[in-house]
This record gives sequence, structure tokens and C-alpha cells, in this order.
Amino acid sequence: MALIVQKYGGTSVGNVERLKNVAKKVADQKKSGDQLVVVLSAMSGQTDSLVKLAHEITKEPVEREMDMLLSTGERVTIALLAIALQDMGIKAVSLTGRQAGIVTDSMHTKARIKNIAKENIKKYLDDDYVVVVAGFQGIDEKSNVTTLGRGGSDTTGVALAVALKADMCEIYTDVDGVYTTDPNVESKARRIDRISYEEMLEMASLGAKVLQTRSVEFAAKYRMPVVVKSTFKEGPGTWVVAEEPSMEKVVVSSVPYDKNQAKLTVVGVPDKPGIASAILGEIAKEEINVDMIIQNVGIGGLTDFSLTVPRTESAKAAKILKGSAAKIGAKDVQVDENIGKVSIVGVGMRSHSGVAAKMFQLLADAGINIEMISTSEIRVSCVILKDDVDRAVRILHAGFGLES
Amino acid sequence: MALIVQKYGGTSVGNVERLKNVAKKVADQKKSGDQLVVVLSAMSGQTDSLVKLAHEITKEPVEREMDMLLSTGERVTIALLAIALQDMGIKAVSLTGRQAGIVTDSMHTKARIKNIAKENIKKYLDDDYVVVVAGFQGIDEKSNVTTLGRGGSDTTGVALAVALKADMCEIYTDVDGVYTTDPNVESKARRIDRISYEEMLEMASLGAKVLQTRSVEFAAKYRMPVVVKSTFKEGPGTWVVAEEPSMEKVVVSSVPYDKNQAKLTVVGVPDKPGIASAILGEIAKEEINVDMIIQNVGIGGLTDFSLTVPRTESAKAAKILKGSAAKIGAKDVQVDENIGKVSIVGVGMRSHSGVAAKMFQLLADAGINIEMISTSEIRVSCVILKDDVDRAVRILHAGFGLES
Repeated sequence: MALIVQKYGGTSVGNVERLKNVAKKVADQKKSGDQLVVVLSAMSGQTDSLVKLAHEITKEPVEREMDMLLSTGERVTIALLAIALQDMGIKAVSLTGRQAGIVTDSMHTKARIKNIAKENIKKYLDDDYVVVVAGFQGIDEKSNVTTLGRGGSDTTGVALAVALKADMCEIYTDVDGVYTTDPNVESKARRIDRISYEEMLEMASLGAKVLQTRSVEFAAKYRMPVVVKSTFKEGPGTWVVAEEPSMEKVVVSSVPYDKNQAKLTVVGVPDKPGIASAILGEIAKEEINVDMIIQNVGIGGLTDFSLTVPRTESAKAAKILKGSAAKIGAKDVQVDENIGKVSIVGVGMRSHSGVAAKMFQLLADAGINIEMISTSEIRVSCVILKDDVDRAVRILHAGFGLES
Repeated sequence: MALIVQKYGGTSVGNVERLKNVAKKVADQKKSGDQLVVVLSAMSGQTDSLVKLAHEITKEPVEREMDMLLSTGERVTIALLAIALQDMGIKAVSLTGRQAGIVTDSMHTKARIKNIAKENIKKYLDDDYVVVVAGFQGIDEKSNVTTLGRGGSDTTGVALAVALKADMCEIYTDVDGVYTTDPNVESKARRIDRISYEEMLEMASLGAKVLQTRSVEFAAKYRMPVVVKSTFKEGPGTWVVAEEPSMEKVVVSSVPYDKNQAKLTVVGVPDKPGIASAILGEIAKEEINVDMIIQNVGIGGLTDFSLTVPRTESAKAAKILKGSAAKIGAKDVQVDENIGKVSIVGVGMRSHSGVAAKMFQLLADAGINIEMISTSEIRVSCVILKDDVDRAVRILHAGFGLES
């Protein structure tokens, strides 16, 4: 008898018919004798409509109240799934984030799980219940409702799997696995059978929307096997697991890209020590996710300082940067939303040299200009013009032999 | 400085514009220096759509899960109102039933409040917050989410007012007070200025939908002054207060009616001791709200036994009665949904005789047949044909001089 945590995304529970389909899958699995915890997202579109309601009132709603508002979506789906399961004769109970024991910090709208009091879930599992848990949410130590940010239900799923010492965490979504790149951009993209936590982490950070970054961090830290599968068709999916020797043979395993970034440049910054922290300090305080940072070589005592952030946060970041710029005597802050980022990822890079050089050459041959570069041990990312992104993805996918 | 609990119903917060209107009213009141607790219902129609979703899955959803589902509606409105208030520069915080300390019994979908841990609300009030509380919901001692039944937000409002020792509880709704009868049936109906708890209790029990019965019980028990007002226009409203000498001068203060009842008759019941409890025991166990009960005089050792229940529960009640009927050897159970109930209510009845006789005469003169009768110290109710109800209301309203 295995203990399995399954997570179903918003499109998987997008209407009553689909909810019933999920109930049937869960019921079948339960009948095979496994213990099951099922984590659900809100119905697709639901979170957006709630955000829209709040924005009809004000552009900047209080984040504590946004969490109260947004946490309702998952409560609807868990109740409906529990109703559907019981209607099929399966013992089932729905639990909110709080009832499932999920305690987070108090950073509203992007809280992090601090610990999970698993007694309540355990009790229901011991009583042979399917436990249906609201993803994306928890409570902080003062009992305020918190949410974990977009995609947070993945993290709920993996964190519960870790806390309960589950045998695996299954992530059911509307695609049948993780691909070498977005099939909408490159039709020759292939499903990957097995991928390492480290590669998945890079891909998630780079905007591949299959798994929330934080969920992969959890899985990697505790070596929890995760499999990404389609809710709608049978298939092996993609296993996200610890690095295996065979993985190193593939130099580049995927080509993720991200068109939802913006570049902010602080122009005419006096070039002296402490400038970077003066500029970045305030941004960090607001928990804005800064991706790349570049400080140009100074000329005549002045320098430029560029950074990229998610486009949704560019207005907020620009506002903060203008404040910092004024303080340090910089001239201006420019916002460029016409950029995109293309990357190559692969654990094989550790043992192969010249991978980055090959990437730059492939892009140069295609006449694509690189504006910013960042690298990690298993990744190279380039900021380019947004209009060049699709073409760059296809060139790199072919250039690194991912079509075979 | 007064401490006031205000409750706004579903139509008052039915869309963003109306929510903003409520926020403005609350902000104005707050600026006058009062401490405010605001209890909200879900947006009108929201609860019905959630019920519909559940019924698309099964006709008999598990009640614990219905509570999980239905409790989401109020969380949406409280978050939005707190957002709107803060946008106006008013300190505000939303609290769920749980966060407001509302503990109920475990009778899902019609739970009763057992106690209120008011520390959290008090703390926010002391910090000068407007505290916005989700009506209709609480948690039981095992921390399951519960709801208080239709109209339960009234009860949340009054119970909070009592627990916090508020100066008054204001119930804002879509009518400007309590009327002598339904103005849709009798255009000469008048708004009542002051009404006693006892009269209001009878009216609420009789299906006048202005206040939930339980809320009036709370108000009466703790002598909490309640005023029913319109959200949409200024006016004095109707005060629900302890009985005053002047009230006794009015023999009949209102003519409530109810078309949502059904009559169930167990036919051919062996006429021996213990029959009533055999028949009613099972019904009571299911918490079905039995209104009138009549046992006919037995003929030839057999008798008929009739009772009325809310029409929504007639199918469930009939099923139970058929079981009981089989056990005690009764012949059949008949369901009649073509009935209605018309009543007269007034504390003046205590000191005036012949009021019931006058009612029966007025109905008889109009050729309206009475099927069942029940009375209390300040009320007389008659079950009649549903088609006769409107006419009966007008006749009694005129006959007891309520038009003046």
C-alpha cells in the first residue's frame, strides 16, 4: 500500500464535468488500495475573476485581504470533489490549508510554508478517508489566511508529500509532461522522460509554468519523486528525480524562454562603492523577484545599472527605483518591456565546456543581438528582443540536437 | 462613543458598486467616532449558484461539504469591503467566522452558535479598526466549518452585538423596515415603528423573511435593541425592542403569511398511546422543522395524523414518515403542497379576548375554509388553500384595522 499525494490544477477542475472526471480517477486509485491525499487548485479563471473584482475597487488592494479573497477558490473545488467522491461511495473529507495544518510566514500573496502539522490529515488517512486539501493557502502564526503565490498548489502538494513521507507526488495538469521547449513555439519539442531536480528548478525559475519553483526546491531538498502527468490522457509523464549518471550525456536538455520580463535601467549612476545595494535594497524589501543584474563599466564617473523583473512587477519596481535614483543622484530610470529571455538548461553542462560559446554563436549567426547574459552551473540565459524569442528557441532547440 | 454592529444583507453587497456604497456608509459612521463591527452576507445569488454547482454533482451532497462550499461567499464580500474601506483611508480588517471567534455546534447547514471568543475582535476594535466579519458561518469544536442556515448572518450580527455588549445592532436590508404585512400582497401595508421581540419572533417563525428567527431569539434573550433599515434610502426603520405598554393597545400588529409549507398526512393510524412520538421521533432526529401538528379524533380505532413542514423539506419528511407509517401499521402518507398559512400577531391579544373568533369569522365570511389551526399567546395561524392566501391577508389586514 502506497501513500500518494496527487495535485490537480485549475483546468483539471475547471467545471463540474471535469471535477467528476477527477473524482473518478481518484476513486479508481483509491480502490487499488493506496492512501490518497488530493490537492486542488481553484477552477481555472476563478482566481482571475476574483482579482478583477478587487481591481474594480482599487488598483492596489491590501494584500492581507487579497489572500482572504483568493483563498475562496480552492475551498469551492475541494468541497465539490469531496461531495463527488462521497456520491461514488468513497469516504472523503475536504480540508482548508488551515485544517490541513499548513502554517506559513506572514508575507501575504507570496507566503512560504514554515511547517505542516500533519495530525489532522493523518487521522483521516488512518480512518481510510481520501483527504482533499485546498492548495495555494495556509495560515500564519496569527491565524491570518495566507496564499503561496501563483502555482502555489504545486508547493502545497510537494510539501504535504514530504511532511507525510509519501511515496511520491503526482502533479496532474493539462500537458502530458515536461517538454524540451514549448510545443507552441517549436512543434518538434519532445516530452522528457526523466529530468533532474536541478534542471527542473532552473526551468521553473525561467518561467516554464509546469511547476512552481518553490515546489521543486522542496522536492529537491527532500528527494521527493515528482511525476508530471496529464489529467486528460493516460501516459508515462515526466519524472522529476535526483540526478542520474545517464542524464549527464545530454548536454542541453531543454530550451525554456520567458516573454513576461521587463528590463529597468537606472541611467547616470555615480560610480562609487555601495551603489548596487542602495539600488537593490529597497527592491529586495518589497520581495520583488529580481532576475538578472548588470552594472555597465563606468565612463566619466557615471555608470548604468540594469535589472530584469517580472513584467507584472515592473511598475512597482520602477516606482521604487525612481525613489532610490533620486537619493543617489542618478539621472533617470528607463523601463523596457520589449524584451524576452531565452535559456539553455542541462546538467551535462557541468562536464562539457564551450556550451555557452556555442549558444552565443548560434544566436549571432541568426543575427540576434544579446542584451544581457546570466549563467549558472547548468544554465545560460540571454536577454534579447521579445520579437526574436520564438526564432531563438527554434534555433537553439535544433542547434543542441533536441529534436532527435 | 457607541459600539455598533451593522449587518448588510446579500442585495446590499450584490455587486461592486453596492459594496462601495456600503463602504461609504460605514466610513461615514466611523468618522462620527463610533466603534464598528460590520457583518456581511454573500453577494445575492452567490449562495444559490454554489448550491446549484453541488446539485449538478448529486441531489444529496454531504452537509459538512456544503458548509465548506457555502462559507466561501461571505469571505469574498468581507475581503472586498475591507479593501474598499482601506482604499478610503479607513483602517479595516476582515475576519472569517473562525477568526471572529464564533464557535457553533456540529449540526452542519443549520448550526447554532455556542459561544463567541471575542478577544480577536476586541483587539482590532481597540486598535481603531472597522472589523468586517463573515456572517452565516463559524467552526465547531473540531474546527470544521459550519453554517447557520438561511438568514444566518442576522444571527451572527445579533450574537456579536450581544457578546461585545454593543449599544445596538443595525440590520441593513432591501426594505425600509418591518411591515404590517407584505406590501406586494396588500398595498396598504404600513411600516411599523416599534415592535416587540415576541411579535417579531412570531413573525420570523411564520416566514416573514426580514430577520432570521434565531437572531430575534438572541436579541430577546439579551434585550439587544435591533433596528431594521434600508441600505438604499434614509429612514427611521423599525425598532425591535422589549415590549412597551403602548404596544398592548394594538390588538393585532401584523398579518404574516407563508406559502412555502406542505401538509403531510399519515392516514389510517392505529389509535393508541405512543403513536405521536413514534411518528414524530424520526422527523425530530433529522431536525426537520415541524410547524403544526394535528391528530384527528379516531373513528373505529383508526385516526389521521397531519403535520406541516417547510416545502423544501417535504420530500425528506415524507420519506421518513413512510418508514414510520410502515412500522406502526398505518395505511398511507399523503403530501399536499397546495396549502398556505395566514396568521395574525400582536401582544395586545394577551389582554383582549375574542381575537381568534373574529379571525375565523372574517375568513368564514369570505368563504375561505380553514384546514388547520394553531395558536400561541400572541398569535393565531390558519392553514388554508394556497390560492386563498392573498385574499385572506387583505381581509384580515382590513378587518383588524391595520390600514389606518
